[in-house]
Order: sequence, then C-alpha cells, then structure tokens
Amino acid sequence: MLVSGRRRLLTALLQAQKWPFQPSRDMRLVQFQAPHLAGPHMGLESGNGGGVIDLNAFDPTLPKTMTQFLEQGEATLSVAKRALAAQLPVLPRSEVTFLAPVTRPDKVVCVGMNYVDHCKEQNVPVPKEPIIFSKFASAIVGPYDEIVLPPESQEVDWEVELAVVIGKKGKRINATDAMAHVAGFTVAHDVSARDWQVRRNGKQWLLGKTFDTFCPLGPALVTKDSVTDPHNLKICCRVNGEVVQSSNTNQMVFKTEELIAWVSRFVTFYPGDIILTGTPPGVGAFRKPPVFLKKGDEVQCEIEELGIIVNKVV
Amino acid sequence: MLVSGRRRLLTALLQAQKWPFQPSRDMRLVQFQAPHLAGPHMGLESGNGGGVIDLNAFDPTLPKTMTQFLEQGEATLSVAKRALAAQLPVLPRSEVTFLAPVTRPDKVVCVGMNYVDHCKEQNVPVPKEPIIFSKFASAIVGPYDEIVLPPESQEVDWEVELAVVIGKKGKRINATDAMAHVAGFTVAHDVSARDWQVRRNGKQWLLGKTFDTFCPLGPALVTKDSVTDPHNLKICCRVNGEVVQSSNTNQMVFKTEELIAWVSRFVTFYPGDIILTGTPPGVGAFRKPPVFLKKGDEVQCEIEELGIIVNKVV
Repeated sequence: MLVSGRRRLLTALLQAQKWPFQPSRDMRLVQFQAPHLAGPHMGLESGNGGGVIDLNAFDPTLPKTMTQFLEQGEATLSVAKRALAAQLPVLPRSEVTFLAPVTRPDKVVCVGMNYVDHCKEQNVPVPKEPIIFSKFASAIVGPYDEIVLPPESQEVDWEVELAVVIGKKGKRINATDAMAHVAGFTVAHDVSARDWQVRRNGKQWLLGKTFDTFCPLGPALVTKDSVTDPHNLKICCRVNGEVVQSSNTNQMVFKTEELIAWVSRFVTFYPGDIILTGTPPGVGAFRKPPVFLKKGDEVQCEIEELGIIVNKVV
Repeated sequence: MLVSGRRRLLTALLQAQKWPFQPSRDMRLVQFQAPHLAGPHMGLESGNGGGVIDLNAFDPTLPKTMTQFLEQGEATLSVAKRALAAQLPVLPRSEVTFLAPVTRPDKVVCVGMNYVDHCKEQNVPVPKEPIIFSKFASAIVGPYDEIVLPPESQEVDWEVELAVVIGKKGKRINATDAMAHVAGFTVAHDVSARDWQVRRNGKQWLLGKTFDTFCPLGPALVTKDSVTDPHNLKICCRVNGEVVQSSNTNQMVFKTEELIAWVSRFVTFYPGDIILTGTPPGVGAFRKPPVFLKKGDEVQCEIEELGIIVNKVV
C-alpha cells in the first residue's frame, strides 16, 4: 500500500526542507514557468515533491524545452548533472507552475490491455501482442492542471499509467537495445471517455482518448538511471482520496523494452515521444455499478519514485 | 476523366515555360531543399508543375518551415503575395527536392468511409457521423519520395485523398467559421496496410495506417483562395499508369467545414494540422481478387488544381 496523500505530502515537505543539506541525486527534469521568467524554462525538481532549480539560469545556453533538451542527448544531461551536484538556489514549489515534462511531442503512443490484473478484471485473455492506439499531443496538460469534462461524454473514466519518454531517435530497435533509447519515466493519466471509446466513432478508440486535457503528465521526467526498476513500482490512482486503482508495474504484460521494439517496427521514434504503458484494474467502467468522473472530483495518480499528479475535474 | 500522365506533364511543362510572361496567380506554397541551400526552405511553386521561387531569398526574415510560416498568419502570406507579384528567379524543378508541404504537424487527422461511392463499393451504409482515426506525423514523406513496403505487411493498399491544412488555431469551431481556419489544400496518399488495419492490433486502425512513409503529401499547399471549389475537384489514383481510383470530391459525405466543426469538438487545432478527408472507391482490397502494392510499383495521386504526387514502392 502507498502511504496516504497527507503523509506523502508531509514526507515531500520534509524532503524539500532537507535541501541543501541532503540534496537528492535523482535527476528529475521538469518544464516550468514562474512570474519572473519569460516563457517556459527547463528545471530540476529537487527530490520528489521538492522545489525547482532553474537549469536555464545555471546555463543560459541550454534549450528551454524538454524535446530540444533531449535532442541534444548527453551534452545537456551532463550540464543537468553538474547543476544537480552544485548548490543552487531552489525556487519554492509555491512560486512555480509545473508544465507537463514534455509538450507537443511527435507522438503519444498508448497501449491497451497491458496489465495482467486489468485483463482478469475484464475477463478477457492477456493479449498475445501489444494493442496500440494513440492520443494527439494536444491532449497533454500539466501535472496539476484541470481535466475538462466535455459535454459530449457522460462516461469519463480514470486510468493511471507509467509513461516512458523516448530520448533517442530509432527505428526497428531491438528489445536488448531499447533502454538506450529511453530518457526516463513519468506519471500519466490516460483519461478516457468510454462512450466514445467503445460505442461511437466506428469503435476506433482515438476520439474517446484524445479530448483536450485528457493526458495529464508529470510532474517530472525521472531519468532512467534514477529509477531503481521501472517494472517494479507501486502504481495507484485515488479519486477524492479513495484508492480506486492499486497495483504494481510488475503486472505489465509487455514491458518497456518489448513495447519499444514492437512499436519501432512500425514507426521511427523521436526524442520526446511518449509511450503510455497501460493501466491496472480498478477503472470506473468495470465497477458495479459503473462510476464516472464528475465536476469537482480530484484525481491523484501516483507512481512510486516518480511522483504524484493531481488533477481536478471541472 | 483526368488527362493522361504524359499529357499532364506536357501541360505542366508548357505552363512552366510560359512564366514569367503569364505567371500563375495561384499561391502554391512548398517546402524544398536545393544543393546550394542550407536546410529546408519555403518556396512558391510557379504554377502546377512549375519551378520554385525561393521565398527565404526574397525575404530572409520569413520562417523556413511551413508550420512557423502558417503560425504567423497574414503577415507571412502577404510577403508571399508580394513575391508572387514580383518577377523573381525560378529554380528549375530538376534542381530542387520537394519536401512534404508540412512536416511534423501536431496531428494528422484521418476520416474513414467519407465518400458516398466508396461506401457503396463496400456495401455499407453512409456513416451518420464522421469516423476519425489518425496517423503519426512520422509517417509523412515528400511528394516524390519512396513508399517503403514493410516486411510486416502483405496487404499494402493505395488511397488518394484530399488533405486540408489548418492555418489558424481553434477549438469548437462552427462549420460556418471553419474556412477561416483553413490555410489550403494538398494531395495526400493514405497508404494502408489492410492486414494490420482490420485483422490485427485489436481492430484499431492506427498501426496499419502509420508505418513510416505511409503518408506522402504535396507537392504544394495550395491556399484556399487559389482553389475554385475544394468540393468539386476531380480526384484520381493511378498505379503503374492504370487508373484505379477516379471520382470527384463532390462525393464526400462530410465536407471540410463539417469535419473541422466535428473534430474541433474534441481537440484544439493548430496551424499545420492536417486532415485527410477520406478516399473514393477503387482501393485494392475491394477488387476481385484483391490487389496490393508490390515492389517496383509507381503510384500517382492527382487532384485537379492541386497537383500530382508520384511515389515509387520499394
């Protein structure tokens, strides 16, 4: 079980306060804005739930968007490592606005039915090959942004997911080489309008998955070196404080390496591309009776080591 | 009937030769490369099938990509209009490489079953609302680039389509306002791997539609003011010179304005976004027996007033 939201917040605050005496060595890259800064900046979250170090202030030659940052590969990452080792000023969390760690990627690849326990919940066999669909990049919002309920849907559902962020271009990538193409991981919410996903639009899932605001991401891109094991992380979704999904990424049918190998048989991956790796059981559609999101709800999606995103439904 | 490829080529050559005595007033925006230029440039095709005017040479402050060009709206368009009126040097077609008129858009929206005669061919009812799916932007290639047959598919099929290019950001756009959001039109080839589209991937069409090179586009973005009536254009596909699709965009079930209104209920459109508006009858999958593309085939997709794209299958 994950610790409760309140205790988590307390832990996060304590972690933040420890800085700079015990700075986190985790590389947690963020895109953020602040009143005193012009436009989005690249930053480092100083530990899970901590304040933000302005990377563009540390090195004004660094790009200001994550996609460009990733495109430059090791060169920019080594600057971020130096920033992490230095004792730099930290902007308090209250003074910054977190953006999604990646905005406007070339693609948002999504995987359906990719948790063993989620397949059991639906009483369907575990897929023999990944089921791939997509969202448009225009669905992406920040980790604390609002999810806008569209009047077109009466069945908007939650889905917490582990998201992989691609760091290096590639096509026909072998599973054994796949992790070399991964920049890191973040938390995603694959918000899903079930009516549009399964009953409308000729049963093509796209429209039900891609309403604006249906892809909250963040708060940080945690680099792969900073994650102990991406396939053994507690993953949890809470709606208004109640745990509705609680599983572990070890339940994934196809792991990061297999997904990259599979999808790259079809398409070239580019830095910044995102893969949403599927959701565990506990979605609203399979409850008896079904439960859907309504105005005023607050959804928290949390993955161990990666962080928590909190999105209010409006 | 469209004129034959050879006669069309002759006509195009004659048109090109007439310049500058009777310059075309059509605004045909292109992205191109040339050996003497660093990186992609913005240009004007001087008439359908003519040479290219270098817009960045005319005004070095202009953006060098179509998406940025469109983002600047009327400001950049008025520069292009001045270039069109001036007597500028024209690079012969043989000396330039045409890129897709838009590369890396935020989204490539596709519409299924959107020609009355294509529905009849399949013996299915005309849809009551548009069926929307997508390709990833990574599938886009230029108007004369090669289509790479992937070893994963044995059923790669052709589909000529009218493509709409969005010029102005918008959400919940009324059909009556929709044309204000259109920059122009171009020719698209919605290459489709039928095995993956309809039998694999949980019947989600995405993978079968989005292999790399499965979205040839071009040669030019013909601005809406330069098109007499986008919904009354002859549309044609030839494989190795044989006409396989021949229809008219007046057969479209949902026209440009309705498609923009529909899709913008779900997502925000951005400049550069592309809508592939569906294909007329004559695809290979519904022939008896079915016919699919093989290595060495040459596919020509042509739309009246817009131009012709020619893609070899390798």
